[in-house]
Amino acid sequence: LDNIVTEKKAEESHRQDSADLLVFILLLTLTILTIWLFKHRRFRFLHETGLAMIYGLLVGVVLRYAIHVPSDMNNVTLSCNVNASPATLLVNVSGKFYEYTLKGEISANDVDDIQDNEMLRKVTFDPEVFFNILLPPIIFHAGYSLKQRHFFRNLGSILAYAFVGTVVSCFIIGLFMYGCVMLMKQIGHMGGDFFFTDCLFFGAIVSATDPVTVLAIFNELQVDADLYALLFGESVLNDAVAVVLSSSIVAYQPEGDNTHTFEAMAMLKSFGIFLGVFSGSFALGVATGVVTALISFNFTKLRDFPLLETALFFLMSWSTFLLAEACGFTGVVAVLFCGMTQAHYTFNNLSPESQDRTKQLFELLNFLAENFIFSYMGLTLFTFHNHVFNPIFIVGAFLAVFLGRAANIYPLSFLLNLGRRNKISSNFQHMMMFAGLRGAMTFALSIRDTATYARQMMFSTTLLVVFFTVWICGGGTTQMLSCQKIRSCFLVCCRLKYSGLFNASCLMMDFLCVRLQIGPDGVERRSTKHESAWFFRIWYNFDHNYLKPILTHSGPPLNATLPACCGPLARCLTSPQAYENEEQLKDSDSDLILNDGDITLSYGDVTVSTDAAGAHTSGTPVGGVAVNSDEALDRELAFGDHELVIRGTRLVLPMDDSEPPLPLDSHRHRHKNETMS
Amino acid sequence: LDNIVTEKKAEESHRQDSADLLVFILLLTLTILTIWLFKHRRFRFLHETGLAMIYGLLVGVVLRYAIHVPSDMNNVTLSCNVNASPATLLVNVSGKFYEYTLKGEISANDVDDIQDNEMLRKVTFDPEVFFNILLPPIIFHAGYSLKQRHFFRNLGSILAYAFVGTVVSCFIIGLFMYGCVMLMKQIGHMGGDFFFTDCLFFGAIVSATDPVTVLAIFNELQVDADLYALLFGESVLNDAVAVVLSSSIVAYQPEGDNTHTFEAMAMLKSFGIFLGVFSGSFALGVATGVVTALISFNFTKLRDFPLLETALFFLMSWSTFLLAEACGFTGVVAVLFCGMTQAHYTFNNLSPESQDRTKQLFELLNFLAENFIFSYMGLTLFTFHNHVFNPIFIVGAFLAVFLGRAANIYPLSFLLNLGRRNKISSNFQHMMMFAGLRGAMTFALSIRDTATYARQMMFSTTLLVVFFTVWICGGGTTQMLSCQKIRSCFLVCCRLKYSGLFNASCLMMDFLCVRLQIGPDGVERRSTKHESAWFFRIWYNFDHNYLKPILTHSGPPLNATLPACCGPLARCLTSPQAYENEEQLKDSDSDLILNDGDITLSYGDVTVSTDAAGAHTSGTPVGGVAVNSDEALDRELAFGDHELVIRGTRLVLPMDDSEPPLPLDSHRHRHKNETMS
Repeated sequence: LDNIVTEKKAEESHRQDSADLLVFILLLTLTILTIWLFKHRRFRFLHETGLAMIYGLLVGVVLRYAIHVPSDMNNVTLSCNVNASPATLLVNVSGKFYEYTLKGEISANDVDDIQDNEMLRKVTFDPEVFFNILLPPIIFHAGYSLKQRHFFRNLGSILAYAFVGTVVSCFIIGLFMYGCVMLMKQIGHMGGDFFFTDCLFFGAIVSATDPVTVLAIFNELQVDADLYALLFGESVLNDAVAVVLSSSIVAYQPEGDNTHTFEAMAMLKSFGIFLGVFSGSFALGVATGVVTALISFNFTKLRDFPLLETALFFLMSWSTFLLAEACGFTGVVAVLFCGMTQAHYTFNNLSPESQDRTKQLFELLNFLAENFIFSYMGLTLFTFHNHVFNPIFIVGAFLAVFLGRAANIYPLSFLLNLGRRNKISSNFQHMMMFAGLRGAMTFALSIRDTATYARQMMFSTTLLVVFFTVWICGGGTTQMLSCQKIRSCFLVCCRLKYSGLFNASCLMMDFLCVRLQIGPDGVERRSTKHESAWFFRIWYNFDHNYLKPILTHSGPPLNATLPACCGPLARCLTSPQAYENEEQLKDSDSDLILNDGDITLSYGDVTVSTDAAGAHTSGTPVGGVAVNSDEALDRELAFGDHELVIRGTRLVLPMDDSEPPLPLDSHRHRHKNETMS
Repeated sequence: LDNIVTEKKAEESHRQDSADLLVFILLLTLTILTIWLFKHRRFRFLHETGLAMIYGLLVGVVLRYAIHVPSDMNNVTLSCNVNASPATLLVNVSGKFYEYTLKGEISANDVDDIQDNEMLRKVTFDPEVFFNILLPPIIFHAGYSLKQRHFFRNLGSILAYAFVGTVVSCFIIGLFMYGCVMLMKQIGHMGGDFFFTDCLFFGAIVSATDPVTVLAIFNELQVDADLYALLFGESVLNDAVAVVLSSSIVAYQPEGDNTHTFEAMAMLKSFGIFLGVFSGSFALGVATGVVTALISFNFTKLRDFPLLETALFFLMSWSTFLLAEACGFTGVVAVLFCGMTQAHYTFNNLSPESQDRTKQLFELLNFLAENFIFSYMGLTLFTFHNHVFNPIFIVGAFLAVFLGRAANIYPLSFLLNLGRRNKISSNFQHMMMFAGLRGAMTFALSIRDTATYARQMMFSTTLLVVFFTVWICGGGTTQMLSCQKIRSCFLVCCRLKYSGLFNASCLMMDFLCVRLQIGPDGVERRSTKHESAWFFRIWYNFDHNYLKPILTHSGPPLNATLPACCGPLARCLTSPQAYENEEQLKDSDSDLILNDGDITLSYGDVTVSTDAAGAHTSGTPVGGVAVNSDEALDRELAFGDHELVIRGTRLVLPMDDSEPPLPLDSHRHRHKNETMS
């Protein structure tokens, strides 16, 4: 009979779990339907993530205040005194043994709560779910879609913002918050311990920016590609930096009695941990990416089976995460670099169908995970039971976040501009300042540990920072763009469109935009190949001459790029396809680029220098000797502008931030041809 | 300090979990690479699932015998005496509270083992993972790909095999096993309780067939479409029947002291549970499918955003599962019927891109989940610690499984043949007998509860049954087919191919096969529209006239099919597209059908009656009145044959059981044109 009761209980609990998960699924469904409505109506002041948060908030309010589940006396918990907390506990109930697993520590004042909020505790996920299930696809997707020429062009600046900037921001915020904490202690507003390391930890977690909202709008409005690349690249990389930084701050453990004093050795150790974990995760991620590229390179016949190919790609990418976690590195960071490597090499070896499938798969996973996290954020504002809202701390945090972002962007931009020929203008700087939203990563880092008073206060404050930045900064992006007068063809078009001159005027505007964008810039850039940062050029040459030929089927054959003495090795490593491809030397990023023919077709009289590049492509030396990498780089830079042009043609389409460019463009061409003929 | 130790322990445990999961991921990767090799070499005697089991076995052996993890004394478990086993336990360790959750009961003789096999226990998943995570995508995929004309044509027979057959098989096996158990008790081979309900439970779980291996080969070899539909339909539905049947057997609880006697009331209650749970799950699945169809029907603009559409589809299908579980029905069964409804209605409302995406997504999930389950099966043979292998029981089980299958197939086929005009021939019956493999569902049902001696013996025996049937019956399918002389053009072709006359001879064989298949059968079937079962006709008319127009954009406009009095209602429910579509009345299954033009193209001189159907299509009455459903059914039946023809053209391609037919065929055409010109 006892057995049956246990079974009944387990069944009941399973039902409850299903119902809870169902609430989230329905929340997501509702979000999707509303997003659709917004997209349909071209309402741009609330992004899907902001919307998910609002729905989450509403459900949270209902769960907290409207539903009262009578406390089930069967679930009453018992206390038994033992002298350790093992991972597994065996409990002897009148001769029968039951196995229990450790879930975590509970603060003494919550013990009474447990009975009361059984239901609320049910809808609270284990925080590790975010790190181990929801964040990896988001971060991988970011890395996988970072395959942009403009990213590599601005690599130096992006690395500066992401590494130096995040560390600067972390310390500025940490110091400022320490001042706040001191003040609070003075006036007796502090209900628990709050050490300097806690302040630094807070600095690290709120330094991770997540401009997903802003970028979605940038994508729609066709904002300057360099600004886009700077923001996206920075946000992706500073997530990685923030994760590792926060874990090395936690690892700061001075020896001796007082564990909260400064100690140089412990500090150095933390720094060592930062370097070790970051480079280890980086190496692991890249290594798995390269292994996948090699497998897909050598198992060429795998291309006949897109299902197997996609499954392999998915499993290898997942194993990066697990491998990194198993080795004690940071899975999320490894997954990011794995995604970038996959995009740069493996992607070129996949069959076209698998390229689509993998993109779509990770796009879907990213979409679901992201919206889930944001709706959970909204929910948790009401269902989390240990909130500590302290007005001084909150105001201080908002100020600190502002200051930290400013100390990241403005001084660094000034320093970078000393070295950049293509300066980061002040309105770009203001825009980057404004676009420093906090999102999924900040939330996941802050919910990971809410055991102490300090962490609980951080968590509550972080939630408010996320809400504020996503709703206010995210919603105000369009206004900010037009206020900063950042080149966005869309804005002009938009006005014309509403004035009833839709088709003709937008065509004209496209036309002008193309001329505006490609005219001066394009010509300028073509002659500025020496403008690019020197280490980008070194990297590019190495990548193009050695890595691409070894890891992908595109790129020149190796024996054209290796010195003569390495001939046999080169022949052995070069795939037969490389020789075939030699003439038509497709570039790895060519999927982003339309044929020149298309451009000439659509802009009949704006044949701005496309022929030059076209001639370039077909004019590649055919002999196996001189595939000049400088020439290729030049061509690559030229192609970059085409991309810009083509992006320019998408302006006035129904908003879609998820479509591949090609079908849309062809749709557009058709439309254009109809209008013109 | 204590805190740090706990954190370290949690971290260590997380690392171990990651490493364990990594083992599985690498296993799957290895399986994929080997499958690719097999497909490439056209090795057909071992299916991927069989292969996954072999790899699982090997890893299981290594984990069990080769790796010795020194028992960690930190993980030593403690016993404390309490008088209940609550779901949550609070443990007071020197003033700090730790929360523990109930994992399950442990038999007394395993308590000592726990320290020893910590590592093996780590790689053992919670059995509910199979039911709640791995099975749903597999079953949904089965339902979603069940969209076949031949399935509906044979609906009566399939339902008979699935319902009557499974119940018969369950009772035959149960009775036979009860005999075995009696014998074992007599000769003292039984080490614990084993009741008649246990025998019936065993009968229910091993009655779920899973001919995935056989069907993959059928698909490659182009075996008769009716046989394929019978086997696939039966196996999909009997999974659902077996799940509900086993749960209603478990629910058999006679009142009174002896809970293992026969009691009519308890029996009736079990029967009621069976009916209630089955029909409830069915209704829920269909309802969610219809809701999704209605959403995608009304939110037509959703088609512009395939990502949103796919996400919605995925979430709605998942919510079916959760809803059913939350209501106390069976999620897996609900998901099956949801998949079928989605395929029948929602699929037609999706944009072409989303159709591809959803298909590919569930194909991938199915592939991963299936191979994961099968490799886990291999692993668990060595890592599961409570195996009870009893020779008599095992031999008895094999005999019982054989008898049960025979008692299902042969008598039912005889009865069905009385009513069928298109008889199920004896070699088809032998093939169905042979193809009764046991797979994922049987395994998941048997591992779900391994607490008692009886259940442990069942689990061990079930594993052996699965291994035997997948390896032997699965591997021997090709031989069995040729031995039973089942029409499969491939076999003839295959021989010619190896005799060096590949291209020319295969083209000739294709030619002959088409003539063979369409010649007599096609002509015969065209005139046998009254052959179909009467309830299929009723269902078809209702579906075609009312459901399709309300739920999809295909189908005739409602006011053509509803009586005149319902005119306003009809106008309000009919989408504008229905009128547009009226002339070209696309059928919902048309994605399976090539244009007639293609057939004429590839078989220049075998224009066997395709024109007839072609004329039929274009000759649909254009006026809004007489969209005769009989005519449509006739056309549908005629189309069915085309499908057969087209399937026939795929015979000699490189084996692919996952490709959509169209690209392959076009590839084939190209190939053919090259050869012919």
